[in-house]
Amino acid sequence: MSYKLKHLLSMQDLSKEDIFSFIELAKEFKALNRSPVKKTDSLRGKTVINAFFENSTRTRISFEIAAKRLGADAINFSAGSSSTKKGETLIDTIKNMQAMRSDIFVVRHESSGVPKFIAANCDASIVNAGDGLNEHPTQSLLDLFTIYEAKGKFDGLTVAIIGDIFKSRVARSNIWAMRKLGISVKLFGPPMMMRDCDAFGCQICKSMEEAVEGTDVIIMLRIQLERQDGEPSFPSVKEYSKFFGLTKSKMLHAKDGVIIMHPGPINRGVEINSDVADDPRFTCILDQVENGTAMRMAVLHTLNLNRNK
Amino acid sequence: MSYKLKHLLSMQDLSKEDIFSFIELAKEFKALNRSPVKKTDSLRGKTVINAFFENSTRTRISFEIAAKRLGADAINFSAGSSSTKKGETLIDTIKNMQAMRSDIFVVRHESSGVPKFIAANCDASIVNAGDGLNEHPTQSLLDLFTIYEAKGKFDGLTVAIIGDIFKSRVARSNIWAMRKLGISVKLFGPPMMMRDCDAFGCQICKSMEEAVEGTDVIIMLRIQLERQDGEPSFPSVKEYSKFFGLTKSKMLHAKDGVIIMHPGPINRGVEINSDVADDPRFTCILDQVENGTAMRMAVLHTLNLNRNK
Amino acid sequence: MSYKLKHLLSMQDLSKEDIFSFIELAKEFKALNRSPVKKTDSLRGKTVINAFFENSTRTRISFEIAAKRLGADAINFSAGSSSTKKGETLIDTIKNMQAMRSDIFVVRHESSGVPKFIAANCDASIVNAGDGLNEHPTQSLLDLFTIYEAKGKFDGLTVAIIGDIFKSRVARSNIWAMRKLGISVKLFGPPMMMRDCDAFGCQICKSMEEAVEGTDVIIMLRIQLERQDGEPSFPSVKEYSKFFGLTKSKMLHAKDGVIIMHPGPINRGVEINSDVADDPRFTCILDQVENGTAMRMAVLHTLNLNRNK
Repeated sequence: MSYKLKHLLSMQDLSKEDIFSFIELAKEFKALNRSPVKKTDSLRGKTVINAFFENSTRTRISFEIAAKRLGADAINFSAGSSSTKKGETLIDTIKNMQAMRSDIFVVRHESSGVPKFIAANCDASIVNAGDGLNEHPTQSLLDLFTIYEAKGKFDGLTVAIIGDIFKSRVARSNIWAMRKLGISVKLFGPPMMMRDCDAFGCQICKSMEEAVEGTDVIIMLRIQLERQDGEPSFPSVKEYSKFFGLTKSKMLHAKDGVIIMHPGPINRGVEINSDVADDPRFTCILDQVENGTAMRMAVLHTLNLNRNK
Repeated sequence: MSYKLKHLLSMQDLSKEDIFSFIELAKEFKALNRSPVKKTDSLRGKTVINAFFENSTRTRISFEIAAKRLGADAINFSAGSSSTKKGETLIDTIKNMQAMRSDIFVVRHESSGVPKFIAANCDASIVNAGDGLNEHPTQSLLDLFTIYEAKGKFDGLTVAIIGDIFKSRVARSNIWAMRKLGISVKLFGPPMMMRDCDAFGCQICKSMEEAVEGTDVIIMLRIQLERQDGEPSFPSVKEYSKFFGLTKSKMLHAKDGVIIMHPGPINRGVEINSDVADDPRFTCILDQVENGTAMRMAVLHTLNLNRNK
Repeated sequence: MSYKLKHLLSMQDLSKEDIFSFIELAKEFKALNRSPVKKTDSLRGKTVINAFFENSTRTRISFEIAAKRLGADAINFSAGSSSTKKGETLIDTIKNMQAMRSDIFVVRHESSGVPKFIAANCDASIVNAGDGLNEHPTQSLLDLFTIYEAKGKFDGLTVAIIGDIFKSRVARSNIWAMRKLGISVKLFGPPMMMRDCDAFGCQICKSMEEAVEGTDVIIMLRIQLERQDGEPSFPSVKEYSKFFGLTKSKMLHAKDGVIIMHPGPINRGVEINSDVADDPRFTCILDQVENGTAMRMAVLHTLNLNRNK
């Protein structure tokens, strides 16, 4: 394994070699997960805390399964029932759970930078499982694993990321990583969702056609209706779907062998239509989910090794 | 083991032999559960998801204990905190958790037919842990196990089911199974709770006396006050208790050796009085609970074997 | 091990020898928890139910980690999602979970006496994890463990407990235990929080200075704002902090080597200031947390042995 840090906070901390070695390791765990006995003991006697200050059943279950298959004791903590409501500071909450000799915290938080802040104030290993509008590195790693499985390479590929780029930590993590890997990234979305996107230095598309044409991988982002607070970013779901949703007709001019990805959960008929989401020629959405569990095993396994060095 | 299917959806799918072989296996797990080390590894390296779209602490805990004693990794999922709230379809939610290489889903849902629908759209094994007004097969199996322990036979027995038959999935699963086993079933309850019950082809009783007399097993159903929405099925709890609740005085003309069962949780003083519920001559309610965990171990164990065939 | 009971309900049931033997055992588990593989199998095949009728994430996680490191199957039950809402009695809820062949219940309840009531009506072992205003014995044991680590003895020490004595189960459990161990206990707090405290037979202090001076151990109690229902016990947080909160300036006349403890979670700037809470010369708060997990392992381990005698 090439990755040497004891935390996984940002895709910006990973070299090309790190990414490839995570993919190699995830491949092995994927094979284990497809075998009859999905169990190792590499984290036996270790305590993994799923510290979800922002709710996410899917990601929590993926990490919980990963930890348990590695033999760890996995503990779920969600902020709704926590001491933070009793006036405790975030760092005190974490330090307390760490004092119980916890080894790894998987942290999701609605505020950008919280996992990094915790890592600076705590001896345990921290996995960023999504922080505000900032990053979601395990999602990026599983996306890259899925692309590599489908395409056999990164260099020279073109990836389009479509949707609410501004609010997407998935997009941010992927943009950092993909550029490092020699992937050309195109971005497309409604104007309000493209704020500040020039700064990424990616190709900004003017139409769905431009985004789709010549593209090897299309990543559709989830419209997070629960986060459209204040001024909405688009007039209506119907209009969003018409101009920014992916449909079979919009795939007519797509490149042969193009694959479609989505971080889930998908809103059928909003950002993606069922005729595309369920078309086995295109969709890699469930591969992403399977690869996610394997990749999270690779991450937990690696951080545990690095932590004990 | 005679049961060959990889799902357990309905008691209608079970032959007499299947029921007997589940009871035999549950007996072995009951003995294990009474031994100092309640642990096997028959599901080691398997992932069991408790997918409770309708809340039920008791049944969830029974299944969670069963899965853990078999050595499985058990994951709890409840709809309250799930992606279904984010607009994801039910099948997408399940397919995602299955893509994480989950082996068995224990599904409870307020809508009839959901476990069957999931089974048709998913490669994992599905256990119906209660679906709407339809079925609750593990409850029926544990009831049968309890009756067999007490009576040593099924053929020729008379069972009375008393309460809200119309809304009871416990009654439905038991009626299917008991008739197959040569048990005579009598039904009794307030008129609104007996809607459409003629279709079962059972003896419909006119009074508590008729229901109790000559009966070997009395199953009292829980008054699900939380489901009496819209028009109530009875005028008041006091009147329900007077006419349809089981009390010691109503047991005066009962057969010697009659046993009383209840799927729990019991409403003392409503459908059953404490003088009956706590009388060791009659009550088998806690035997049912103990047998439930053993039976759920038998079911998970069997489905896992069938799934790998 | 000297403690012979199968329950842990009250510090009043423990002899001096019992306390010392719990501390000895906790020391061993603390060493295990600092080793690379924090795992034993002394509770393998046992089922531990965390029955939290009153919410407490921190204590629940401490017990859950303890049970899992001992190899037990740990099940979380919280009243919010339980059958007690469906009209079931408390004892029926417990008896049901016990019928699933559960071995140990860790019980927290807002009403004093509930764990004792359950112990009298149930064959499983009961650990009182906090009941109303009554007791919290594992907190007292971990406090004593922490004091013994710091001071090497109990006899002749002076401990000040400061805050809402009247509503504190931590204070009650500690007062019983400390007097048995030859510790002088001083109490201090606002008048409304000192109701009935004469009955404890401890020194009642008139000022913070009196409480701090000559004291070896200061235990600051948490202001449980969520329990100040009805008439408040103090005019404002600012005034509470001024007169009853611990600050560096109030530590000026403290004894050399004094240590500060707090059951957590702490309200910084209310009952304790950060300049004290984070000063490594004084604070033992995170030691308490670490010792808590080790002590809970000692308790679960011991009750399991006693239960099988």
